[in-house]
Amino acid sequence: MGERVLIALGGNAMTGPDGNAAPDEQRHAVEEATRHIAALLARGHQVIITHGNGPQVGNVLLKNQLTADVVPPVPLDWCVATTQATIGNLILNALGGRTAVVVTRTLVDPADPAFADPVKPIGRYFTEAEARRFERLGETWRRFDRGWRRVVASPEPLEILDADAAAALMEDGFTVVAAGGGGVPVVRDPDGTLRGVAAVIDKDLAAALLARAVKATTLVIATNVDHAYAGYGTPDQRPIGRVTPEQMRALQAEGHFARGSMGPKIEAAVRFVEDGGERAVITSLERIGEALDGRIGTVVQTGGAALR
Amino acid sequence: MGERVLIALGGNAMTGPDGNAAPDEQRHAVEEATRHIAALLARGHQVIITHGNGPQVGNVLLKNQLTADVVPPVPLDWCVATTQATIGNLILNALGGRTAVVVTRTLVDPADPAFADPVKPIGRYFTEAEARRFERLGETWRRFDRGWRRVVASPEPLEILDADAAAALMEDGFTVVAAGGGGVPVVRDPDGTLRGVAAVIDKDLAAALLARAVKATTLVIATNVDHAYAGYGTPDQRPIGRVTPEQMRALQAEGHFARGSMGPKIEAAVRFVEDGGERAVITSLERIGEALDGRIGTVVQTGGAALR
Repeated sequence: MGERVLIALGGNAMTGPDGNAAPDEQRHAVEEATRHIAALLARGHQVIITHGNGPQVGNVLLKNQLTADVVPPVPLDWCVATTQATIGNLILNALGGRTAVVVTRTLVDPADPAFADPVKPIGRYFTEAEARRFERLGETWRRFDRGWRRVVASPEPLEILDADAAAALMEDGFTVVAAGGGGVPVVRDPDGTLRGVAAVIDKDLAAALLARAVKATTLVIATNVDHAYAGYGTPDQRPIGRVTPEQMRALQAEGHFARGSMGPKIEAAVRFVEDGGERAVITSLERIGEALDGRIGTVVQTGGAALR
Repeated sequence: MGERVLIALGGNAMTGPDGNAAPDEQRHAVEEATRHIAALLARGHQVIITHGNGPQVGNVLLKNQLTADVVPPVPLDWCVATTQATIGNLILNALGGRTAVVVTRTLVDPADPAFADPVKPIGRYFTEAEARRFERLGETWRRFDRGWRRVVASPEPLEILDADAAAALMEDGFTVVAAGGGGVPVVRDPDGTLRGVAAVIDKDLAAALLARAVKATTLVIATNVDHAYAGYGTPDQRPIGRVTPEQMRALQAEGHFARGSMGPKIEAAVRFVEDGGERAVITSLERIGEALDGRIGTVVQTGGAALR
């Protein structure tokens, strides 16, 4: 029997093997990813897709930076919107059938502490002189080992503003692509006006919200490993199978998950279930079907069995 | 009583007074345009919006061209998709309420004669040396009085592929933005695969197809004049009021409409009615409400009165 599944595709599913975001590489990667999604549709599942956009938004940003003297640069929220359309367009062509891409904004709080201390690096490394020039345009740049890089806020997603449109399309039988890159970040001004802001939103945390908003029963976070691991990279490394949100919170508290990689995926999976979602699955793109059958993957579910 | 209306916004409604496509100028222009659309919604009309993208796609293209040695340039169809998301995002924020933006592809025929003889200039002027370099990447460039400029095919739109999604959202009460820039141009390969192509599609001709596909009763082509004119620029210049498609075809045959400006708007208006649409209106953005009441504008309608 089919269920309603949100698949969050990692950036790695959208670029070439070396992370190359050249258009042909993106297209081939998307074609590969959509083959796995087509298999789920063939099994009767209703699917909503969200996707990362790191390498893509980096390229869009870089073009803006390099041409800022000649062409008016567009703000970061526009760059996120751009990647929703370009990646979405690839998915439309690759998946075919009744598929729809919805430009999606995600509401954040202008008072989110992330804005006071932007730490998320985006785009490429530049020299200090170049960084200083962009700083004068109002951007925040930080020195890293390999050079200077722009950093932006990664605030908490509060609400997927265009989830209603995605849900309406799903009710009508469409496979939907929404909230790509975590959604276009917007804040609500005191007068109610919505306004884009320079930020990037974690796509897995946004996916958890979107999955709830469209009443998906299962959130699947597709990555490049079959499971999340406890003790990753240590002699005690072990794959995590089916766990309760409480068990996963305990593993989180023990520091098993790296902040920049598995951490947000675990957090998104747990939040989805804590918020009333049925189950969240972390597995590789290739094994989503098996994971939905309970045969592989890290599964967060209320009343989960003991750690595998 | 409300009716279902497609509003095709010209590029001039999306940029500053001087055609400047800087982000703030675009935002202000969109806010102004959406005020007129909000007035139609307040009168109970159901609205679907499409929009031009000339200056915007020109900027995206220019960034690609100027950074081609550093960042993989993206194809022209991606540039069109980009503008659907960036302009769509502005409309979402400015219009508020239940509004949705659908990434939209438009099917064209790979055997369309336009591909053999690309004539539509896009983007900025470059030097001959630069033009030759882009030609080696497979582009077509032509010499104009002011320099070299890329030319692309502007094939006939055959079908708005994502019109179903737009229609489903309208049925659910959404104001929809679709087919921006005429839609992302795609062709269908013999094996059925859809593939983007380097082309731009006239947004008014695409609007006429979209209006029929979503069962709009009225197609409104919003431009910067209150009427189309017969004998424009001559001592005999007279505004065209309510006419039949046959009357308009006769004026067309007499050569009253300039190929690059009013021509495609007239063609789109006539096609919509010939194809079974109720009426097509050409007027200025500011006067759409009056035009829908029959008080101003050029109106193509079966059984229209004599020329005003």
